[in-house]
Amino acid sequence: MTDAIERYMRDCMCDSAHDTQHVCRVRNYAMDIARHEAGVDLGILRAACLLHDIGRAEQYADPRVDHAACGAEKARLWLEGNGYGAAFAEAVSDCIRAHRFRSDHPPCSLEAKILFDADKLDACGAMGMARTLFYKAHVGLPLYMLDEHGAVLDGSADAEDTFFREYKFKLEKLYDRFYTKHGEELAQSRRAAARDFYEALLREARECHAIEE
Amino acid sequence: MTDAIERYMRDCMCDSAHDTQHVCRVRNYAMDIARHEAGVDLGILRAACLLHDIGRAEQYADPRVDHAACGAEKARLWLEGNGYGAAFAEAVSDCIRAHRFRSDHPPCSLEAKILFDADKLDACGAMGMARTLFYKAHVGLPLYMLDEHGAVLDGSADAEDTFFREYKFKLEKLYDRFYTKHGEELAQSRRAAARDFYEALLREARECHAIEE
Repeated sequence: MTDAIERYMRDCMCDSAHDTQHVCRVRNYAMDIARHEAGVDLGILRAACLLHDIGRAEQYADPRVDHAACGAEKARLWLEGNGYGAAFAEAVSDCIRAHRFRSDHPPCSLEAKILFDADKLDACGAMGMARTLFYKAHVGLPLYMLDEHGAVLDGSADAEDTFFREYKFKLEKLYDRFYTKHGEELAQSRRAAARDFYEALLREARECHAIEE
Repeated sequence: MTDAIERYMRDCMCDSAHDTQHVCRVRNYAMDIARHEAGVDLGILRAACLLHDIGRAEQYADPRVDHAACGAEKARLWLEGNGYGAAFAEAVSDCIRAHRFRSDHPPCSLEAKILFDADKLDACGAMGMARTLFYKAHVGLPLYMLDEHGAVLDGSADAEDTFFREYKFKLEKLYDRFYTKHGEELAQSRRAAARDFYEALLREARECHAIEE
């Protein structure tokens, strides 16, 4: 049964930042966190991990679409159409709907909280920086912006959705927003790698743009 | 006259890894290196920096095209057609032809060596890692590969052209291949940031894939 879910997931993935390697890492993190929690339904959690990003293509096609809401509905329909019970499909769908960082639907069930944390873990550390760069290239956005004097802005006031802006508004703030203790411990162990990379990149860019023509 | 060259450059740029910010950094690095060398023709160097990547779109359209050779010819034709002398156009074209890392045309003139070093500087440090990730996403290649046991490979034997492979085969080796002393000094000051990021990313990926399902 799981193989069918995996095959459906592979058919739905569409970009380097949210590829099958990302899904595989999220599933592994979720299983690791689950070992530190009591009463987790591993079947629901595993299916939710595999299917959590299947709404990405729809969001790329139309940015007004929320990939979490869209993926939740796609997953529910696919599971119900492929021999899974309505309660299972609904539980998986609930996890997927609540996995987004910027969302009005915070995770409620234990499985939803674990998926949220596992997905956020893959946005932490060096991996989070690498994946965000993949995503920025995919949608054609730059690393940084310059102010009116030609100096590199640090991201905290960028008008465009640059990589530095994503770091200041999302990636830097992730580490204190975990639901599970083990998820937060793993995240904290990766915090320095992300910060060091951001600071090195900002320093290098500023040094270069400070050179007079 | 420079404004016309800049406008032509802007018309030719096509991806996030080789955008106008990259061109601007290469020009700045080149001007910085030129201050440490005697007898540099700044007009030739500046035009060569601005136009060095104008053959990228042709290489994306057909990977057999060498963007350095193509850009060199495009630059020569454009300069000759826009009021620049044949000797100037030829000197700029020579610089562009020789700026590629993987090339049978090593740089000969001082201006060509400075362009080569300035372009390589933007592949060093955190900036080099960020730009390579942009490029990998642009051409749809993954961060890493797994061996037959599901362990993350370090890039030195990857069958696919992954990010880790690019680090092991190009980015890691850049630092000892500079033509100018100042270029090499700048590069060395950025070496640790690139290595630290690679090692953090490899460690995180390996930790995650080592988790049992």
